[in-house]
Amino acid sequence: MLTIDLGAIAGNWRTLCRRVAPAECAAVVKADAYGLGAAHVAPALAAAGCTTFFVALLEEGVVLRPCLPGAEIIALLGALPGREADHAHHRIVPVLNSLGDIARWQAFARSVGRRQPAWIHLDTGMNRLGLDAAEARRLAEQPERLAGLELRGWISHLACADQPHHPLSAAQLGRFHRTLAPLPAGRRSLAGSSGLWRSRAFHLELVRPGAALYGINPTPEAANLMRPVIMLKSRILQVRTVDSGATIGYGAAATVARRSRIATIAVGYADGALRSSANRGHVFIDRRPAPVVGRVSMDLMTIDVTDLPEAAVAPGGWAELIGPDRSVDAAAADAGTIGYEILTGLSRRHHRVWLAPATGNLATGDQWTS
Amino acid sequence: MLTIDLGAIAGNWRTLCRRVAPAECAAVVKADAYGLGAAHVAPALAAAGCTTFFVALLEEGVVLRPCLPGAEIIALLGALPGREADHAHHRIVPVLNSLGDIARWQAFARSVGRRQPAWIHLDTGMNRLGLDAAEARRLAEQPERLAGLELRGWISHLACADQPHHPLSAAQLGRFHRTLAPLPAGRRSLAGSSGLWRSRAFHLELVRPGAALYGINPTPEAANLMRPVIMLKSRILQVRTVDSGATIGYGAAATVARRSRIATIAVGYADGALRSSANRGHVFIDRRPAPVVGRVSMDLMTIDVTDLPEAAVAPGGWAELIGPDRSVDAAAADAGTIGYEILTGLSRRHHRVWLAPATGNLATGDQWTS
Repeated sequence: MLTIDLGAIAGNWRTLCRRVAPAECAAVVKADAYGLGAAHVAPALAAAGCTTFFVALLEEGVVLRPCLPGAEIIALLGALPGREADHAHHRIVPVLNSLGDIARWQAFARSVGRRQPAWIHLDTGMNRLGLDAAEARRLAEQPERLAGLELRGWISHLACADQPHHPLSAAQLGRFHRTLAPLPAGRRSLAGSSGLWRSRAFHLELVRPGAALYGINPTPEAANLMRPVIMLKSRILQVRTVDSGATIGYGAAATVARRSRIATIAVGYADGALRSSANRGHVFIDRRPAPVVGRVSMDLMTIDVTDLPEAAVAPGGWAELIGPDRSVDAAAADAGTIGYEILTGLSRRHHRVWLAPATGNLATGDQWTS
Repeated sequence: MLTIDLGAIAGNWRTLCRRVAPAECAAVVKADAYGLGAAHVAPALAAAGCTTFFVALLEEGVVLRPCLPGAEIIALLGALPGREADHAHHRIVPVLNSLGDIARWQAFARSVGRRQPAWIHLDTGMNRLGLDAAEARRLAEQPERLAGLELRGWISHLACADQPHHPLSAAQLGRFHRTLAPLPAGRRSLAGSSGLWRSRAFHLELVRPGAALYGINPTPEAANLMRPVIMLKSRILQVRTVDSGATIGYGAAATVARRSRIATIAVGYADGALRSSANRGHVFIDRRPAPVVGRVSMDLMTIDVTDLPEAAVAPGGWAELIGPDRSVDAAAADAGTIGYEILTGLSRRHHRVWLAPATGNLATGDQWTS
């Protein structure tokens, strides 16, 4: 059972808005709003006042267009060859990542006889997407390359924003300014969830958080200022007592060192509980922590509940994987990854409930546990 | 782009049928047929002659019932309290995993005045689900516990079947026979994809492969006798040249030791490319291997293509993540996991194409690469 608090997401967006004003705060809703259901999340953010949304792919924008009729929707991965007309039809503004992208989009604008909107991505140190320094210089020297484009703005992307004093962040900001100096003026966007907490210098005209909206801590060096967004619970199917020395699960990969009670819960890696949490993850039962023992199976996990009161653990009861007792970030740390991968890995097999913003603040434990 | 060869799946099922005859070969289609689309896979298997299907959850069976009108559908995780009538209505036979499960199912049968079908799971060493030895003894001593049940058979589950000579497999088989001796006769099922290759003694009356149907090697100690089933490709978005010493991607987690060409491809962990493949995975471009460099992002991966001919790597081209050049098992090994987790993690964001069995054998490279 996956409960998603749309009010908490909207609240997080408002917190970030206040932080960055007068800069605009957009919302990143790519990858189905980080796995939480973009068709629910984006309208809740629009109702809160958000008017600019980032997706990765055209297709993600097309799905959202009907529920965001007036919003600017921007596709970070740009327009694939042959899909230009679909971008125009659904008003999904591409981010152009190379001179080649710019030339294709310009050719499309010419072919339809109408200026076409675009953001342009300048790489400042990710070495992943975006015009490199040489391409940016050529663009500055040959402004005719922008003819026919309605330039919405310039973006770049920080590589180490989650590390508060990483020198690359300041270096990237400096490069962004130097690269932009000879280029046409436009709105600028550099910071995401973590970057916007670093200093006002990173805000520029537009910030584009994703993870922070969904409750992931954007400032891992400090307490999380974001409200928790999801509650993930799973049913206890069975509780068994095993003797000292018994092995548990696939590969007999765990051996219990004492007579133990083992609870089997109905969640596994097919639900997004990563196999890398084997023998080191935790869940909470009746608000008490209990460790994962043995491997994670496709549909099941085994939990050592020996130290919990017997009455607290019974078939039909619930185990909390993520929620008030266990943050997304803590679950990620146990699996050796980041909260982003935990969220995008939540499978469709979970029964999902979206709490409407009007329901109020439901991010506290008592209200979740019904 | 994810291509799923239904003919290869049906062919793998036929191979396993021949291997285990006269035992029956069922098919495990839980977790959406290991991520490959149960609504496509199950009918293809039914057309090939399969009549028994295993799912994990009631809901998975309900979705499949309309496309498998005559088949036996069995839910491994049993009937949750309160859902008994749904099992009966959709004819999803529960596997009963404890005396408590048996008592509830019996009470339901009494309440509707009709015998209800069930499989019963005897634990022989997984310590995960199923009646333990003491519960099985009580069941043998109190046969009235089975009154009102139409006993379809007995199942157990091997913990170490993928290791050819692991002593636990023979021990589990012995325990299964000893536990069954005083119990009512019924069909017996112990082996899955790997267990059925161990020896005929494991076949009993019914085997229930999943992974092998989907091309995962059931005998990791030897060559894979299964046909490959999926092809996963992703677009090359951009190719850039970076100087020696440049850092790539998030966390500046990779530094190139020479002037390098880096290709960025449109696939990331939100698509199921696990972050644990960072700096150690490979893809194939133009049938040549190229290593993942830096972290895996949500929507993107960066690949070192310096050693590939320049003409072979261009924006708009394809990178093969899984296919004729790279097995599911190899991709899993790079990510530190098993093929099962790779398959169930394939996200809905991939454009999916199912090749109908009538299309013939499409599991060879040339036919895939259109």
